[in-house]
Amino acid sequence: MKKNTAVLLIHCPDKKGIIRSVTDFIFENEGNIIYLDQHTDAASDHFFMRIKWDLENFLISPDKIGEYFDTLIAKKFQMEWTLHFSDQKKRMAIFVTKLSHCLYDILYRYQSKEWNIEIPFIVSNHEKLKPIAEQFSIPFYHFPMTKENKAEQEAKQLALLKKENIDLIVFARYMQIVTDDFISHYPNKIINIHHSFLPAFVGSKPYHAAHQRGVKIIGATSHYVTADLDAGPIIEQGVAYVSHREKVRDFIRKGKDIEKIVLSKGIAKDLNHKILVYNNRTVVFD
Amino acid sequence: MKKNTAVLLIHCPDKKGIIRSVTDFIFENEGNIIYLDQHTDAASDHFFMRIKWDLENFLISPDKIGEYFDTLIAKKFQMEWTLHFSDQKKRMAIFVTKLSHCLYDILYRYQSKEWNIEIPFIVSNHEKLKPIAEQFSIPFYHFPMTKENKAEQEAKQLALLKKENIDLIVFARYMQIVTDDFISHYPNKIINIHHSFLPAFVGSKPYHAAHQRGVKIIGATSHYVTADLDAGPIIEQGVAYVSHREKVRDFIRKGKDIEKIVLSKGIAKDLNHKILVYNNRTVVFD
Amino acid sequence: MKKNTAVLLIHCPDKKGIIRSVTDFIFENEGNIIYLDQHTDAASDHFFMRIKWDLENFLISPDKIGEYFDTLIAKKFQMEWTLHFSDQKKRMAIFVTKLSHCLYDILYRYQSKEWNIEIPFIVSNHEKLKPIAEQFSIPFYHFPMTKENKAEQEAKQLALLKKENIDLIVFARYMQIVTDDFISHYPNKIINIHHSFLPAFVGSKPYHAAHQRGVKIIGATSHYVTADLDAGPIIEQGVAYVSHREKVRDFIRKGKDIEKIVLSKGIAKDLNHKILVYNNRTVVFD
Amino acid sequence: MKKNTAVLLIHCPDKKGIIRSVTDFIFENEGNIIYLDQHTDAASDHFFMRIKWDLENFLISPDKIGEYFDTLIAKKFQMEWTLHFSDQKKRMAIFVTKLSHCLYDILYRYQSKEWNIEIPFIVSNHEKLKPIAEQFSIPFYHFPMTKENKAEQEAKQLALLKKENIDLIVFARYMQIVTDDFISHYPNKIINIHHSFLPAFVGSKPYHAAHQRGVKIIGATSHYVTADLDAGPIIEQGVAYVSHREKVRDFIRKGKDIEKIVLSKGIAKDLNHKILVYNNRTVVFD
Repeated sequence: MKKNTAVLLIHCPDKKGIIRSVTDFIFENEGNIIYLDQHTDAASDHFFMRIKWDLENFLISPDKIGEYFDTLIAKKFQMEWTLHFSDQKKRMAIFVTKLSHCLYDILYRYQSKEWNIEIPFIVSNHEKLKPIAEQFSIPFYHFPMTKENKAEQEAKQLALLKKENIDLIVFARYMQIVTDDFISHYPNKIINIHHSFLPAFVGSKPYHAAHQRGVKIIGATSHYVTADLDAGPIIEQGVAYVSHREKVRDFIRKGKDIEKIVLSKGIAKDLNHKILVYNNRTVVFD
Repeated sequence: MKKNTAVLLIHCPDKKGIIRSVTDFIFENEGNIIYLDQHTDAASDHFFMRIKWDLENFLISPDKIGEYFDTLIAKKFQMEWTLHFSDQKKRMAIFVTKLSHCLYDILYRYQSKEWNIEIPFIVSNHEKLKPIAEQFSIPFYHFPMTKENKAEQEAKQLALLKKENIDLIVFARYMQIVTDDFISHYPNKIINIHHSFLPAFVGSKPYHAAHQRGVKIIGATSHYVTADLDAGPIIEQGVAYVSHREKVRDFIRKGKDIEKIVLSKGIAKDLNHKILVYNNRTVVFD
Repeated sequence: MKKNTAVLLIHCPDKKGIIRSVTDFIFENEGNIIYLDQHTDAASDHFFMRIKWDLENFLISPDKIGEYFDTLIAKKFQMEWTLHFSDQKKRMAIFVTKLSHCLYDILYRYQSKEWNIEIPFIVSNHEKLKPIAEQFSIPFYHFPMTKENKAEQEAKQLALLKKENIDLIVFARYMQIVTDDFISHYPNKIINIHHSFLPAFVGSKPYHAAHQRGVKIIGATSHYVTADLDAGPIIEQGVAYVSHREKVRDFIRKGKDIEKIVLSKGIAKDLNHKILVYNNRTVVFD
Repeated sequence: MKKNTAVLLIHCPDKKGIIRSVTDFIFENEGNIIYLDQHTDAASDHFFMRIKWDLENFLISPDKIGEYFDTLIAKKFQMEWTLHFSDQKKRMAIFVTKLSHCLYDILYRYQSKEWNIEIPFIVSNHEKLKPIAEQFSIPFYHFPMTKENKAEQEAKQLALLKKENIDLIVFARYMQIVTDDFISHYPNKIINIHHSFLPAFVGSKPYHAAHQRGVKIIGATSHYVTADLDAGPIIEQGVAYVSHREKVRDFIRKGKDIEKIVLSKGIAKDLNHKILVYNNRTVVFD
């Protein structure tokens, strides 16, 4: 059996003694540090840290670690922090429309247990991908969207997400603009894949725009969704070379391979608690 | 001694029989085709071709090939074409401001004879890089620029370019916006390096903007200069991964390595007559 | 409905007039050339060509094109050639062992009709991946392998392949060394994915070897299978950066993403009749 | 003026409390940590660390830091460590033969002050690149090599290196196999560029071998020189895609662009004290 480990993700104003205090906290309580990485953003003088340790002989019980850490360390340094345990399974919901490549890539990782998650359901504004949900035995909810019913449908989606205790939402080529209200319930908890190298080609039909512009490289970007369209914190980007020979449909086909990998890599970073968000940018630890 | 070869770059509306006619023209006159590549742009129904052949036993003398080809083939298909010979040396002028990385990269290729060119002079709006020009024994012309003297200085530059029979101008991080009039004298004959992955981060300070946006990949683009700033036909693009650890100055430093390679690759494509421009896009043959 | 097109893949000793003759053949019979690319290998003086044309008004009926081309053109130039039609579906068999990532990637492309193929069955020496075959409703044949039964099992596999008129075999992480005899029935018709950047790390456990050597880039290679282990003609290669932080299991995980894309790209090149093999090397047209 | 900073590079058997002790040492003496990264190699249970701090208010004077650290911390954990100060300039010697691309790339970074180094001289077994040394005003020493005079010439080279207090030697396409004795004087202090993606194509003429094998990607590797040819610890690797169209001379030309960047990146990592070597592998911190 795999040993249980804890991960602390911390950020706060930079100050002398932070690393010392945190490592002391773990060391004095018999924890063995497996991973420590930190980053100071020079411009904002802000400090970021990820620390992971073995819970085997740790003197503080897992359910008390948060309280102790907050009292003894975090308050002193005005830290914002989250605590995660390796034996917890994240619950992830997938939103799709009609394109299947990202969905398949996620489901294969789920089914082959590459990721330690639960996928309680798939949501779509179309019925086209329902057979894939069935093929992988995952409940499929169809929420058709019109201008008129959007608020109502989103309310139903939110109720479903809440009922199922969803930790992370993935827009796997979900071709809908969601409302700010929807997003506000899941800050930095919705990952989207945009089919361009952001900030180039924001909005719809980026491959058409890229072809029109005559670029020699196309790309894809996974990012957290914020109220600003395609302007949220970037997690991961990927690119591929293209030539004049390639038509828009070749860009689309080639782009799919980038999109699915870039999305899955972004999800994996989140699932492994490697991402901190600050000032609309990400710190993505190794 | 290397054999003399000819390259024809052709484009015209697509029509049956073009390839047949061109290959016939060469074959019937005892030319041996060394390279043939063609491309049809499906959207515009436009045809592009690059063909290279050995002139050794070719029955038409080099100075007559253009005339014959135009009369016998090109007119029939409404072709636009250019003819180039491997024993011709292009004459290239370099424009710089204060940054030296692209300049060194070009001069090393020139001095080590990687490129078969003449560089009759270097132009700059500053004096900072004059010592490098001297180090490589190339005349250096200083044209300081102000709002007031711009027209006058450009006129002098144009006179110099004309006098020296310049075929190709390279903006090797020349931090000046040139006038449309200047550009109009050298259509698709000025290559610029822009220090971003176009069309992202047009204009000045792209690395600052990229850092601000929190991108995970930076890039550079070599393109022909047109009247629209940073919007000319793209020749070559390159990228590099970056992380949250990297400051703006790291982007700049890392970007330099991409810029110089992307610019030199773009120049090499032009020098080898591999580029056709149509509708603000390039066809770049292998 | 999509128009039917023909593709000719040709290679022969280089000689004046080949392109002219082939383009004449198509032009004189009212074919419109959609694609033409050629390559001459300077070292061996050997010529390669891929030409694609629209059959709509072509004067020779599809079933006669091969005969006419052979008689009128191919014999004269000692050409080896194959002729393909866009309305033909290739029949592809997949061989797997226990790893599923390549299999899923192929099946998703099949199921989403990215590829115009039939997959009549999946073969494995283990039963582990049977549920995936069932999930995608594809017959699954289990051929357990021992030293003793290898000849016998391969004979059965060959009978099955023949019965099902298989055109292309894909080893999607099939962890068996097949006999020369087996391979001899499908020359340049078996595509394998090797989980290293060949020729580095031939044989088993390449990720372990790569980790041991301390490389900073790992890769994968799709190639045709020949009697020499991991030494067949390379179709496609891909790479990813790695760091000292990554364990062997990280190489393996990251490598899977490269492997599946590199294998699928290699298969797509073959399905689109873009590959010629000569002297254990490939010519892969765009 | 830039502030003086210190960097400690440490490795030792892994044990609880290392990070705590080191950060305590700096914190208690009023140092502000600017960078901390660590790595534990799970297989060998070995710990690696790079820590950088501001010396401005540090209570221990720079010339005493080493002694104090060794006594108070290093001995307790059996650490091997090196200490570096940002106001120290490394002295670097360059060895070349006939190819100039890496040499130019290094000299441009030196001349433009991208690197904070001294280059007291260039060594070569040929005279071809002497003019470049003169162009950059750097002393050039010619040591022609034969089987007979090798020992004698290396002795002279070692004397020169010693006299000039050389910290780092760069083999910038130095086409000589140096003796084990020579190497033993500069363990992990000689950086070589090999013109292939190691461990593929060890030895001479790797581009010829790569072309012969029909690879689709070529590469270059910078590594520390050890007694085993092309088998030393890898620092940095880079690659580029190639196609069947490219001849050996195209591989060579394209490879040069990779080589010079990969070598210069490797040198920069060393100059910035970011590399630890253990078990013939490198830990390269960000």
